[in-house]
Amino acid sequence: KMLGKVLCTVLFVGAFPSPAEASQGHISVVLLGATGDLAKKYLWQGLFQLYMDQVSSGHSFTFHGAALAALEPGQRLMFDVLKKLSCPPDEAPDRCAVLKDQFLKLSQYHQLKTAENYTALSREIETLLRQEGLEEAGRIFYFSVPPFAYAEIARHINSSCRPPAGAWLRVVLEKPFGHDLQSAQQLAAELAGFFREEEMFRVDHYLGKQAVAHILPFRDQNRQFLDPIWNQHHVERVEVVLKETVDAKGRTSFYEQYGVIRDVLQNHLTEALMFLIMELPANVSSAQEVVQHKLQAFQSLWGLERSSAVLGQYQAYDSQVQEELQEAQGYVSTTPTFAGVLIRSDSLRWEGVPFLLTSGKALDERVGYARVLFKNRAYCTQSGTLRDAGHSQCKPKQIIFHFGHGALNTPAVLVSRNLFQPVMPKDSWKEGGARSDLHVFGQPLSDFYMYSPVKERDAYSVLISHIYHGRKDFFITTENLLASWAFWTPLLDSTSRQPPRLYPGGVENQHLLDFEMVSGGVAFTLAEPAELLNPSGQMPSDFRAIQSKFRQSPLVSAWAEDLISQLAADMEEAAVRSVARSGQFHLALSGGSSPVVLFQRLARHHYGFPWKHTHMWLVDERCVPLTHSESNFQGLHRHLLQRVRVPYFNIHPMPVHLNQRLCVEEDGGAQLYAKDIAALVANASFDLVLLGVGTDGHTASLFPRSENGLEGAPTVVLTESPVKPHQRMSLSLPLINRARQVFVLVLGKGKHDITTLLSRVGHEPRKWPISGVSPSSGQLVWYVDYEALLG
Amino acid sequence: KMLGKVLCTVLFVGAFPSPAEASQGHISVVLLGATGDLAKKYLWQGLFQLYMDQVSSGHSFTFHGAALAALEPGQRLMFDVLKKLSCPPDEAPDRCAVLKDQFLKLSQYHQLKTAENYTALSREIETLLRQEGLEEAGRIFYFSVPPFAYAEIARHINSSCRPPAGAWLRVVLEKPFGHDLQSAQQLAAELAGFFREEEMFRVDHYLGKQAVAHILPFRDQNRQFLDPIWNQHHVERVEVVLKETVDAKGRTSFYEQYGVIRDVLQNHLTEALMFLIMELPANVSSAQEVVQHKLQAFQSLWGLERSSAVLGQYQAYDSQVQEELQEAQGYVSTTPTFAGVLIRSDSLRWEGVPFLLTSGKALDERVGYARVLFKNRAYCTQSGTLRDAGHSQCKPKQIIFHFGHGALNTPAVLVSRNLFQPVMPKDSWKEGGARSDLHVFGQPLSDFYMYSPVKERDAYSVLISHIYHGRKDFFITTENLLASWAFWTPLLDSTSRQPPRLYPGGVENQHLLDFEMVSGGVAFTLAEPAELLNPSGQMPSDFRAIQSKFRQSPLVSAWAEDLISQLAADMEEAAVRSVARSGQFHLALSGGSSPVVLFQRLARHHYGFPWKHTHMWLVDERCVPLTHSESNFQGLHRHLLQRVRVPYFNIHPMPVHLNQRLCVEEDGGAQLYAKDIAALVANASFDLVLLGVGTDGHTASLFPRSENGLEGAPTVVLTESPVKPHQRMSLSLPLINRARQVFVLVLGKGKHDITTLLSRVGHEPRKWPISGVSPSSGQLVWYVDYEALLG
Repeated sequence: KMLGKVLCTVLFVGAFPSPAEASQGHISVVLLGATGDLAKKYLWQGLFQLYMDQVSSGHSFTFHGAALAALEPGQRLMFDVLKKLSCPPDEAPDRCAVLKDQFLKLSQYHQLKTAENYTALSREIETLLRQEGLEEAGRIFYFSVPPFAYAEIARHINSSCRPPAGAWLRVVLEKPFGHDLQSAQQLAAELAGFFREEEMFRVDHYLGKQAVAHILPFRDQNRQFLDPIWNQHHVERVEVVLKETVDAKGRTSFYEQYGVIRDVLQNHLTEALMFLIMELPANVSSAQEVVQHKLQAFQSLWGLERSSAVLGQYQAYDSQVQEELQEAQGYVSTTPTFAGVLIRSDSLRWEGVPFLLTSGKALDERVGYARVLFKNRAYCTQSGTLRDAGHSQCKPKQIIFHFGHGALNTPAVLVSRNLFQPVMPKDSWKEGGARSDLHVFGQPLSDFYMYSPVKERDAYSVLISHIYHGRKDFFITTENLLASWAFWTPLLDSTSRQPPRLYPGGVENQHLLDFEMVSGGVAFTLAEPAELLNPSGQMPSDFRAIQSKFRQSPLVSAWAEDLISQLAADMEEAAVRSVARSGQFHLALSGGSSPVVLFQRLARHHYGFPWKHTHMWLVDERCVPLTHSESNFQGLHRHLLQRVRVPYFNIHPMPVHLNQRLCVEEDGGAQLYAKDIAALVANASFDLVLLGVGTDGHTASLFPRSENGLEGAPTVVLTESPVKPHQRMSLSLPLINRARQVFVLVLGKGKHDITTLLSRVGHEPRKWPISGVSPSSGQLVWYVDYEALLG
Repeated sequence: KMLGKVLCTVLFVGAFPSPAEASQGHISVVLLGATGDLAKKYLWQGLFQLYMDQVSSGHSFTFHGAALAALEPGQRLMFDVLKKLSCPPDEAPDRCAVLKDQFLKLSQYHQLKTAENYTALSREIETLLRQEGLEEAGRIFYFSVPPFAYAEIARHINSSCRPPAGAWLRVVLEKPFGHDLQSAQQLAAELAGFFREEEMFRVDHYLGKQAVAHILPFRDQNRQFLDPIWNQHHVERVEVVLKETVDAKGRTSFYEQYGVIRDVLQNHLTEALMFLIMELPANVSSAQEVVQHKLQAFQSLWGLERSSAVLGQYQAYDSQVQEELQEAQGYVSTTPTFAGVLIRSDSLRWEGVPFLLTSGKALDERVGYARVLFKNRAYCTQSGTLRDAGHSQCKPKQIIFHFGHGALNTPAVLVSRNLFQPVMPKDSWKEGGARSDLHVFGQPLSDFYMYSPVKERDAYSVLISHIYHGRKDFFITTENLLASWAFWTPLLDSTSRQPPRLYPGGVENQHLLDFEMVSGGVAFTLAEPAELLNPSGQMPSDFRAIQSKFRQSPLVSAWAEDLISQLAADMEEAAVRSVARSGQFHLALSGGSSPVVLFQRLARHHYGFPWKHTHMWLVDERCVPLTHSESNFQGLHRHLLQRVRVPYFNIHPMPVHLNQRLCVEEDGGAQLYAKDIAALVANASFDLVLLGVGTDGHTASLFPRSENGLEGAPTVVLTESPVKPHQRMSLSLPLINRARQVFVLVLGKGKHDITTLLSRVGHEPRKWPISGVSPSSGQLVWYVDYEALLG
């Protein structure tokens, strides 16, 4: 009833929407967790700002704070917050005071705990609107609650609190959105049971930061300057950085579960990076186009490996965790509080350009920025002292989106004066705005065109305004979220066992956290202090490959990633040796999924591999056209051949496709391949054959009880697979056994049973073809990862 | 007679070689041009230094100055020079005075003009040695004379002045060694008629500069540090720079013929660059190994094009030339006095690393150096102001061989402290040696390990000592010389018509000579001052392709290099359009030599070409194996396919090699290719066919009066060529005429006659197959260079 009165008072006062304008309808904003930290700090202020901005929009509003507390104490707590709402500097104080008074009157506290509470709230809104003769435009539910509460609240809203037909529902969700890909998928699936995709607004408040939000518009408005230089030929590196001076004290219960990658890299820094690297949509205001381009950008990224990141933890973290989480004295956390990550893209635009994402707590300064550094392509003839500083082409060229804090202490866009003078929207960005004697990124501020916002707006105010306007491009869609988790989860998994480097915190860190790009990954520049004392010692994180015997042959075993590194290194060594000996290296490769990681490793880390002198043969092939996605050759081509320079003449796909048909005996494809081998490979003895093992003990395309290829001549055969595609071409066992070296790669838990079995059985190729691999005068080495070996 | 007495006096004085030591034999040094500038300034001092250094070596010496002047005036002139010889600071003044006295007594002037003069000199030496009972060790003839005099002097020495059997002859030659490849070959051939290769010592005095001479030893002694970083993955660029403040005044008669490229780039800077980039020989003191590796390095360089260089000329040059060479007032010279050149290598080590060679007169400072700048691979977490400067990984990393002058004013080797502390030979290089408050290359000197020579030695002293020791690795062999001219001559040719940019000279040059690397070449950063006034105007050097008609079809004509640029750009445009339309681009290419330059241009300048969606077909092929050097496909592979990323599946060599035999009708290769085309190319209509024209009017492998392919079905045919290899496979004329676009490329004077003829004849494919090219619904464009068009 009170609300009714308030509405009457407000809606029909002269300065405010006339009945005609009011026909836009009514919006109810429900803030769940109305008395929590985020609400206190940002959200109520953001809602008040929305009210101030939109009071003349033709919409009428009510604001409903909700929490678990009972009405009376909750109300008191909430109004304590509301009374402290501040007036922004760009608002006339009188108007603001009047509006604040009205905002308080339009706000009400609700206890939302049970299904009945939700039903009651919904009924209250409906009754009121009916009484006032107002149409309902929509309802906003802002979830400022811990994620474990999401599902229940979502269920209640969906079943009891949806607006009537014709009005919209917008639910606003705050991170964390899961802990890894699986949990994020689960949470997304739960929410999808209650809300439609377009109803959900997942907040990443970085998208509300003015400098981040301006990245796409900047790229759009400056296309003429950026088009020629926004690519691998001109950009040296991209950095997205968020440095904090605070540590995790007081928040360790959250932090210990998440760590710096989940806390800021997976979301804030990744989103800023995506704005920089995505192909620019024709319409940058189209949420749909933006998300499509963002997803494509995710697709273009190389998978992260353990070597893609350096991780650190400030020294006091362990004791803070022990204290706050009541852990034992000896408790050691491996949660990183610092991370530097190297990301690379395969796109034509960005191939070879390093993207560095860095964030940490307890660092020397608080600052956030995204920085595009251009290549130095100039030679300046005049000696350094004579150069006109600002415009010299020999000065660094960069574009910086400065999120805030740091020396500038304002959001800003900076463009080196020797690049171009950018187009900026005059109504929202103004030139200058910081002390001109400052140095930023090693250059005086006078070297830049600098722009800062005309009105500095808090990220939450900006986002709340976007929610009101239904601008979904400032929020994280489910696809976007899952793409990001899919990208980050492998790194989280592969580093979870890795103790981070300890750092003292603050200015004491000195060079301890500096890192460098080395052979496709990153590494700290300085050795660990411990290593400095004991330079011959192993790092604790340095898992060594176990060397032992398996089936009377050498066995190399390690976690999968280390195993692949070792195998790739051994292959390079074999190749170099073979080229030194004979000028050539004849390598026969298997298809399937295990070698993909190996191919990627070879392409990315082995610049010294003598590709020019390597002949590539196939161990086996599926009878499909070579361009077919199931073709072994297609996998080899995609993951390796496209990225290295093997001469065309040295590439030998199996001729499964002849005379417009596949693996027909009379076409003689197998014989043709055997002839090619005989003609090019001395003594038909490959320098190296790489094999895998199936769960049934098959290897190459030689299956148990196969009629062909298990014995007889060293040749190439057509075989039948028990699984599709059934027809195969394969080197025969006797041909494989002529090789100088045979490496067998076995990866994953799924191979544990066959591995165990193979460790016991003898030479029985008709039962388990792999057991027949036994080079007559060459060497056999098993590469089996811990999961396959130990289960 | 006088000489005899002198020798007696000297050789048997106690302090000097005893008879036992003297058994090393006698060396006669003949300095031709003994009263010239170079002799006055450097050579006599160098010979005196040699005498001081080697007086106790067991060799005895006589020094014979020679010139065209008669005995008396020549003698006077020469001894005026000798009297002024100075004592080096590291020599005891007493000893030096005694030695200088003896040196003067051992020196004699000769008029060397006629054959008789040479015979007389030789006889004098022999007589003397006989009298003194000395063995002859060898004779050194130092040519300090203009190159036009070389041949005659060489003839005289060879016929009349060779030492007796058992003694060596060394002739020392000063640049210029020719004016371009052809003249250098001619001069070399002439000299080869008189001297054996091992007798000739071609001086490049830069090889005697201490910092240049130490490049290879430095690389050798620091292998452990350099091996991992001396490559494309770590080096950002290499610069070799020689800046002068003087201009060409007083030397224009020489300079006007040579210019900066011939004067210093072709020789000094190139040699320094080669020491930096050659593969390091196992033995860096082996002249043979060094020259072999140097020649390989030359082989790895990309050919220079006009866009590889920026050229300038100081403003006063023209009036100096007019004055000194008595040219008319309006005389305009195009001789460059400034050049910046971008050089690239194809080697695995250096691929993608720009080598910048820069030199000029009338610049702001005098300095010479070779500088290797490493890539910035680090991220420094600590803010700039907190970093420990000297060792921070975020400071530039560089190695500088400082030839002399500049702020350091001494030869020096500098290595950034954040790289490594180099190994330096303690007896010849000492740490420090310049004022520590200096800044070099934008960094305080304290950021470097710096070494300077223990004894500073003049380049000529060093070289004369090497001649004495027979160290041929410090001299330019004929092969080396010709390799360098072969490398530079195309640039000299292609820029000879180009007016250089004018610059005021000295500090006034400001940014006018700054240049940047752009799309495979270099360009001045600032537009010409004239262009600044008239931004829409064409540069005078900007030859535009003529657009007109030829045989009723569009004709594009220009100088060859511009024509190729235009053709490549048009091809990219056609490709982009085709991919946008159909997702694919089917391109059929001709073999032969003309397209090679086109292939190189496409590979190097067209990063935006949609290679991934391009299918590569052959227009014709010679019946040789694909890997054969005469195979068209091999040329395409080598110059284009190896450098871009066309998917394996999109590459379609002609199947000339089937069943281990070549182009046998029954193997059906032509039909196979036709089938592939039918299967993949919609309507068998190529998007673009690139053709050439033979002097007989043939195109593709369709020759006049061919039985196949000139009419009939659009198919693939076997044909006969009048020249070897006779057997060919070719697209037929009707198939070519189905294309959407056909470009015909005609280059060179050799094609002028056929071009003229074709401009007159009609459609007569049996006489001139090219006249039958007439796409039924596509477009035909002629690309004919000025030489082919205008003769």
